[in-house]
Amino acid sequence: MYVGVDYYPEQTDRALWDEDVRLMKELGVNVIRMAEFAWTMMEPADGEFDFSFWDEVVDTFGKDFDVILGTPTATPPAWLIEKYPDILPVTADGVRISFGARRHYTVNSPVYREYCERITRKMAERYGKHPAVIGWQTDNEYGHEKSDRSYGDVDQVAFQAWLQDRYETLDALNAAWGTVFWSHTYSAWSQIPVPRTVFQEHNPSLLVDFDRFCSDAYRSFNKLQVDTLRPLIHDDAFITHNLVYSDMAINQQQMAQDLDYVSFDNYPVWGGLPEPNRFEKTAHDHDLCRSSKQGKGFWVMEQLSGAQGWSRIGYLPRPGHIRLWTHQAVARGAEAIVYFRFRAAHFGTEEFCHGIIDHDGKPKRKFDEVQGVMKELSTHGDLINAAEYKADVAVYFDQENLWAWTHQPHSDAFNFKQEFVRFYGAAVRQGVNTDIVFPGDALDKYKLVVVPLYFLGNDTFDASLIDYIENGGHVIFTYRTGVKDPINRCHFDTLPGKFAKYAGIEIDEYESLQAVQSNQVKLGDYVSEANIWCDLITPKGADVLATYEQAFYKGTAAVTRHTYKGDVTYIGSSVDDAMLDVIYNEALTRAGIDADRLPDDVEKVDRHGDGYVIRFYMNHSTDVTSTVDVSGDWQTLDGEAVLSKLELKPLDVVILKQEVEA
Amino acid sequence: MYVGVDYYPEQTDRALWDEDVRLMKELGVNVIRMAEFAWTMMEPADGEFDFSFWDEVVDTFGKDFDVILGTPTATPPAWLIEKYPDILPVTADGVRISFGARRHYTVNSPVYREYCERITRKMAERYGKHPAVIGWQTDNEYGHEKSDRSYGDVDQVAFQAWLQDRYETLDALNAAWGTVFWSHTYSAWSQIPVPRTVFQEHNPSLLVDFDRFCSDAYRSFNKLQVDTLRPLIHDDAFITHNLVYSDMAINQQQMAQDLDYVSFDNYPVWGGLPEPNRFEKTAHDHDLCRSSKQGKGFWVMEQLSGAQGWSRIGYLPRPGHIRLWTHQAVARGAEAIVYFRFRAAHFGTEEFCHGIIDHDGKPKRKFDEVQGVMKELSTHGDLINAAEYKADVAVYFDQENLWAWTHQPHSDAFNFKQEFVRFYGAAVRQGVNTDIVFPGDALDKYKLVVVPLYFLGNDTFDASLIDYIENGGHVIFTYRTGVKDPINRCHFDTLPGKFAKYAGIEIDEYESLQAVQSNQVKLGDYVSEANIWCDLITPKGADVLATYEQAFYKGTAAVTRHTYKGDVTYIGSSVDDAMLDVIYNEALTRAGIDADRLPDDVEKVDRHGDGYVIRFYMNHSTDVTSTVDVSGDWQTLDGEAVLSKLELKPLDVVILKQEVEA
Amino acid sequence: MYVGVDYYPEQTDRALWDEDVRLMKELGVNVIRMAEFAWTMMEPADGEFDFSFWDEVVDTFGKDFDVILGTPTATPPAWLIEKYPDILPVTADGVRISFGARRHYTVNSPVYREYCERITRKMAERYGKHPAVIGWQTDNEYGHEKSDRSYGDVDQVAFQAWLQDRYETLDALNAAWGTVFWSHTYSAWSQIPVPRTVFQEHNPSLLVDFDRFCSDAYRSFNKLQVDTLRPLIHDDAFITHNLVYSDMAINQQQMAQDLDYVSFDNYPVWGGLPEPNRFEKTAHDHDLCRSSKQGKGFWVMEQLSGAQGWSRIGYLPRPGHIRLWTHQAVARGAEAIVYFRFRAAHFGTEEFCHGIIDHDGKPKRKFDEVQGVMKELSTHGDLINAAEYKADVAVYFDQENLWAWTHQPHSDAFNFKQEFVRFYGAAVRQGVNTDIVFPGDALDKYKLVVVPLYFLGNDTFDASLIDYIENGGHVIFTYRTGVKDPINRCHFDTLPGKFAKYAGIEIDEYESLQAVQSNQVKLGDYVSEANIWCDLITPKGADVLATYEQAFYKGTAAVTRHTYKGDVTYIGSSVDDAMLDVIYNEALTRAGIDADRLPDDVEKVDRHGDGYVIRFYMNHSTDVTSTVDVSGDWQTLDGEAVLSKLELKPLDVVILKQEVEA
Repeated sequence: MYVGVDYYPEQTDRALWDEDVRLMKELGVNVIRMAEFAWTMMEPADGEFDFSFWDEVVDTFGKDFDVILGTPTATPPAWLIEKYPDILPVTADGVRISFGARRHYTVNSPVYREYCERITRKMAERYGKHPAVIGWQTDNEYGHEKSDRSYGDVDQVAFQAWLQDRYETLDALNAAWGTVFWSHTYSAWSQIPVPRTVFQEHNPSLLVDFDRFCSDAYRSFNKLQVDTLRPLIHDDAFITHNLVYSDMAINQQQMAQDLDYVSFDNYPVWGGLPEPNRFEKTAHDHDLCRSSKQGKGFWVMEQLSGAQGWSRIGYLPRPGHIRLWTHQAVARGAEAIVYFRFRAAHFGTEEFCHGIIDHDGKPKRKFDEVQGVMKELSTHGDLINAAEYKADVAVYFDQENLWAWTHQPHSDAFNFKQEFVRFYGAAVRQGVNTDIVFPGDALDKYKLVVVPLYFLGNDTFDASLIDYIENGGHVIFTYRTGVKDPINRCHFDTLPGKFAKYAGIEIDEYESLQAVQSNQVKLGDYVSEANIWCDLITPKGADVLATYEQAFYKGTAAVTRHTYKGDVTYIGSSVDDAMLDVIYNEALTRAGIDADRLPDDVEKVDRHGDGYVIRFYMNHSTDVTSTVDVSGDWQTLDGEAVLSKLELKPLDVVILKQEVEA
Repeated sequence: MYVGVDYYPEQTDRALWDEDVRLMKELGVNVIRMAEFAWTMMEPADGEFDFSFWDEVVDTFGKDFDVILGTPTATPPAWLIEKYPDILPVTADGVRISFGARRHYTVNSPVYREYCERITRKMAERYGKHPAVIGWQTDNEYGHEKSDRSYGDVDQVAFQAWLQDRYETLDALNAAWGTVFWSHTYSAWSQIPVPRTVFQEHNPSLLVDFDRFCSDAYRSFNKLQVDTLRPLIHDDAFITHNLVYSDMAINQQQMAQDLDYVSFDNYPVWGGLPEPNRFEKTAHDHDLCRSSKQGKGFWVMEQLSGAQGWSRIGYLPRPGHIRLWTHQAVARGAEAIVYFRFRAAHFGTEEFCHGIIDHDGKPKRKFDEVQGVMKELSTHGDLINAAEYKADVAVYFDQENLWAWTHQPHSDAFNFKQEFVRFYGAAVRQGVNTDIVFPGDALDKYKLVVVPLYFLGNDTFDASLIDYIENGGHVIFTYRTGVKDPINRCHFDTLPGKFAKYAGIEIDEYESLQAVQSNQVKLGDYVSEANIWCDLITPKGADVLATYEQAFYKGTAAVTRHTYKGDVTYIGSSVDDAMLDVIYNEALTRAGIDADRLPDDVEKVDRHGDGYVIRFYMNHSTDVTSTVDVSGDWQTLDGEAVLSKLELKPLDVVILKQEVEA
Repeated sequence: MYVGVDYYPEQTDRALWDEDVRLMKELGVNVIRMAEFAWTMMEPADGEFDFSFWDEVVDTFGKDFDVILGTPTATPPAWLIEKYPDILPVTADGVRISFGARRHYTVNSPVYREYCERITRKMAERYGKHPAVIGWQTDNEYGHEKSDRSYGDVDQVAFQAWLQDRYETLDALNAAWGTVFWSHTYSAWSQIPVPRTVFQEHNPSLLVDFDRFCSDAYRSFNKLQVDTLRPLIHDDAFITHNLVYSDMAINQQQMAQDLDYVSFDNYPVWGGLPEPNRFEKTAHDHDLCRSSKQGKGFWVMEQLSGAQGWSRIGYLPRPGHIRLWTHQAVARGAEAIVYFRFRAAHFGTEEFCHGIIDHDGKPKRKFDEVQGVMKELSTHGDLINAAEYKADVAVYFDQENLWAWTHQPHSDAFNFKQEFVRFYGAAVRQGVNTDIVFPGDALDKYKLVVVPLYFLGNDTFDASLIDYIENGGHVIFTYRTGVKDPINRCHFDTLPGKFAKYAGIEIDEYESLQAVQSNQVKLGDYVSEANIWCDLITPKGADVLATYEQAFYKGTAAVTRHTYKGDVTYIGSSVDDAMLDVIYNEALTRAGIDADRLPDDVEKVDRHGDGYVIRFYMNHSTDVTSTVDVSGDWQTLDGEAVLSKLELKPLDVVILKQEVEA
């Protein structure tokens, strides 16, 4: 199994390289990623290429380690920006982003694409066949820090061309977007704006199309590099990209199809965050990566190994956190872990991005922890990787739906990813493996499909889902199902639209709740706060599981279940986690899944190998010890017997193995 | 009485028109407003006019209903903006507002005025004499969403011309504004800025003059349309404009003089607001409309009939709210109610502006409620409209005073409209009819005049008010009376300036309180929080009603009353509603007005007809039932007798009638 | 002693001048500052000079008072801006600041410098030898309201030139800044940006160099005026500048070297602040002024004398506040007090900057209070001024360190000045005189040196400090000592770097705490909240004074003391004031200083004259009376005996005198 570090030889005194090689070996490293910001060290002036520095680097480090090279296109050089300032991106207010940090380019600049193609080609020509170079990373963290959308003139021209390609005629576009509203009817492609600042709000169909355009632009930008690299590198060398956020105007799942595998930069906590993200969020991130590429293992290309931050420095990972987050990634399908970063930089914006080794260069607590987990992985990693991640539960996600919600969040209490993770995490907490499914993915292998916040429709998924239901599938829907067509227009059907029949309900009224508002929902004896949204549900065959407690709709159904062929559960409000646990546990059980509400903060993942099962128990609490029941013939990976009551100390990971019939 | 709907045939499938006519008739509609955003459907390209669509619409709907047409100038077409981008408005930071929503024009663009005149003229030529078209609405909601002020080059040129017209010489302007301060002295008109972003703050006299200029510009822009329409339409057709907010750089009362009547878009709650505005706010809005046009009845051109919002969706009106808000408007002088909107749109920015009928096209709860109230109005509306709204109490309002406060709010706790409504609502809660008076309005018909927050002086009103006081009038003043002259400079007099003599006080010190600060005021045994401001009052003949409880000025007078001829009450701090109730009740009673503190959230309005009085009781609470004492020989409008203890259920309206001598 | 007023004859009706002279004399004024915003009254058009107004002013007021003239360069005239709009400053977002307030210039405009030189020269030629004009103030409040940094093209060119001057070669600059990070390597000076808005954050070394550049630019701008004035004014006339904030990109201590003395605009409370700053902040401000010029007495050129504010009006100074703040300034070295402002303006942005006399022109409470304190100062001021301010404790401050922190505050709970004043105030509260020391200042005269937040290193100070420690000096360090080199890069040493040896500790880990986070620190039985930062200290010879109470590092050292030769105390977290008091009191006592924790809000300052000591006791509480023990043979300045228990009423000042051997 690959375990490694992100390394910046160009930021490190040449005199320290030998020491670093020694320390990396002591650590257990077998792969290094580098070069992804080093454009001027290869092309110091326009068209003048000098690879002498990197020749030495690749030779020096390539002797002991495999190498992944990043193309340096996240950081266009100063000489390039000076020559072509239109490469710089522009905000919705028309502010041209300055040179001086990174990601200061618009992906829609034709001249920038030419320069990117050339530097990529030159690098590939130089190192594509180098024996140490096993793979390539394109650019770095597309879209990071609002670089996903640019609103300049060059972007507008590209958007207009994209629209022309999509709609062919202005009549078609005008009809699709409903430009008759507010007299927006376009009589020339050149009239169509990018969504710069307006007094009110842009047309929602334009907004989602602009996101599609931004995403396609990034995809084609990435594809250009992939296509440039491919013919010049080893046949078995891989090409990947390290994605970081999944809430941007970039469709990760589509881009993944152009890559050999997906990489992910795993920062469960970041400068300014007082606490790490809840563990279900990170679980979801890993599932998203694995599922984006049809279940194929992914890489963690940057795994946090110290307090992170720029001007605000973050939470110090507690002893055990690095190991825990490493195993969580591995459990959920990471085939390799690369730690960010080997050494902290002494200069530049990221000098407070702490790594395995801090500014004083001494191996200390974090070094020891990484060394320990690398040793575990070198011993057991291949066994784990060889075991398949299988899930009975799938959760539907469509990037375009996220965009639609982002533009129309309904309530100031709503954040798509946060709410999505709540509906996702309720499954994780029942101790079941989870997959993400995208439009087009097969559903029939799942016993239950959760379809959260299905606001923007997708025809392909609609068809799959209805087929799934008609064949007895179990489904959980939530509020705002069936509202929009793929063009981001409201349907004419009574909600939940084409799913009303299956859910056995109709929704004649609803209410958006702002952050200061709430209602209550009662399920059995338990009363939950109800936030964000209340669907007032009229059962048309469904059973009422829970009702509202307040306002004029007190007593109205809030959560229902309809047995169509399988069960179709509908959750009409944002009830709390405890109520979701009850609803999910029952739905999973009824769907024939072995659900088991785990102790708080405990995560369980199973992996199925040829003749064995691996089970991970992970306690994400920093202060509570929990106990789980382990029935069956489990052993530790080192072959030790396990008590039926397994105690999990704070931040502990226990990995068990069981022999099964192959 | 006119009752109707706002309708968008251009956003509605042609196949639904017949169904919509049927439903509208079922609902009780007799008037429809339309066309106010439909420029490109009349002039799809520069100078190419095509009215075929609207011909069909007006003929189709005009068969059954009267029609009001809006000029489409709130939405300049894409082809026009592409040709003349300088039409777009500019923010104080210099950001040019983009095409893509509405109100994307500066009223100061000469070329835009030409195009507006032409489209208005073409429409009027086409439909001015159509038998169904009973009236016209100019544009739509002037100034909405910060479109009242624009800071571009074209605006600056127009501002300079306006100033030259107002001041004639630079010497006069320099003297008036005190430009000697910070060396702002202008030696050419072209040097004078619009108030774009500065490090500190602009000259307060410039700021208020800029607002006057913006307001005049809107007035002349509107007048251009009125003058274009008038000769081309029926002699008895009316011209109106639907105003929406009254806190902008637009002087509603002045603009009203150019219109046949005032219209108002009545949204007591809007997307993002967790609760409806307090009822006194809406009462004030209606009074403002009626009083803007010297007591003439006004129209509610858009009456909320469902949850509103763009990206944030709002509060769902409770059962009874539509009826309640309709009657509140009618009680206070609305002669017609037009509901926004008949159908929800399926596309565009406003697709979540819910109307009488939702996206699924089914008549449901809201339809029934509107149908019911339309029936009530068709039965009794004319009787109500024939009865006069008379008030014993007037509250002074001057748009220019609002501007002065907006630029110098003194405290982060101060919001002019909110505070004004507090001083206004205290009268409303005593169960008395209220008028607004503007500079120039006669005061002698009132028994008491409330003059809240009279910061920016007006010479005309000063003269009227002093005349009123000298003739025995009763007045309530508040803190910050008499501070500024009409040029927004501070007076040399000891506060409250020329009113010190009448109030029998002097104010030698004062203190501004920020939101985190407060003092206390004691009146009798009751202690109120004192917020925003504390005048330290020295009585010079006045009686002390209340004193401060804290700080070094503990014991100093906070509220006083001086009997000059009538009573002059002075409220030196922002005391709470309960204390205002006591002060107002006593002041009203002493002024010979039959005041009666109503139960919380209950509103009472009387209308005086020829031989009858109509009385409205309205309970704005969503959960509390209240009881009012009804003495006298009252019956319901349907002729039923009324108990002396009248119970008002939550959101209920009871309308009573009493015969009186004609 | 000089006591006076800031006066604006150009804003005052000519008819009031005689009255104002009379009132000023009654008040006790002997000096007036004026003219600092009056450019257009001297140069109404480009190159046309007309001094007739000021001739009359200087003659009229110069008869009775000494005069200080300000150069009017804080307010470039409208005619100048119209001619050269590039004089206007630009924000980081690229917004060009508008004409319409003040400080609307970039100090980097060559054309503006020419105009400033000319008007300064003309003024000096006219009034430099006038008998009444005793001194000059350059410009007004450099940098106020974000005018310290400008990001326009003219600034960028100047920055590039400054860098070229500093680094000579691009290689040197690239190496110093570590531009290899994110591929920022510059191949031409013209590529280097000013820190306009980027997606992420700029290089920290660029940021601090930009601040140095801004500061140098202001210094040279000021120097130009000083050099212009000097040869044209009386030999004994002084040149000063009135500084106001000390947290800007202006190095006050460096600029002070070009001035005869430092002036300070003392506003302990300002519009919008609900309460005055804590007294230690103002004490620190005065010490900063005095110490900036090597202990030379300074002037308070604007002393608040009424509620201040622009659009938000501030706190009303309580009776006693003006006297208290005056004496606090005098105690700490102010040799003259000039009150802002004699009269409130009736127009302009600052019409709510209240002064000694309000808009109504009547002498009232504030007049009486100023009159009283002027009388005190005329009686005793010279005696006080003749007594030296001597301190045993010094606190280190370096403007560049502040800049480094400003760009990398680590935590949202951190504000440099606020935190610095906490570490400063702990000394003040022990009743000891305090100095500020800057890089280059001698340390050997102090018994203890506090070095708070010593993040950005300074080689000169490092050398002085180590020398001081090696010679037995006592030092208090705080968290984040020794992190950065002077180029704002991280050191390679284990923290606290070169001071580890003296502090007897090493810091292997640390944690940044955001505002919502905290830990606890226990010292003896007292437990304090620990905010902002936690150093996890490993003692290497030091004694542990206090330990953390929470998180995985519970029990780890948080505060230590190492006896090297003197004591070296290290405070590893932001503990509360009560704990700082304990730590400081002990450290001071051990350093042989007579420390005595004063009652809350009480300040004590000693001044040492020739044969006498003056002691100030000042109670800054508005409501609590405190008692201090006065041992020794003290009398009041009027010769009255003092009880050994001295009672200090709220806001009271008691000044005592003791004869000592000369």
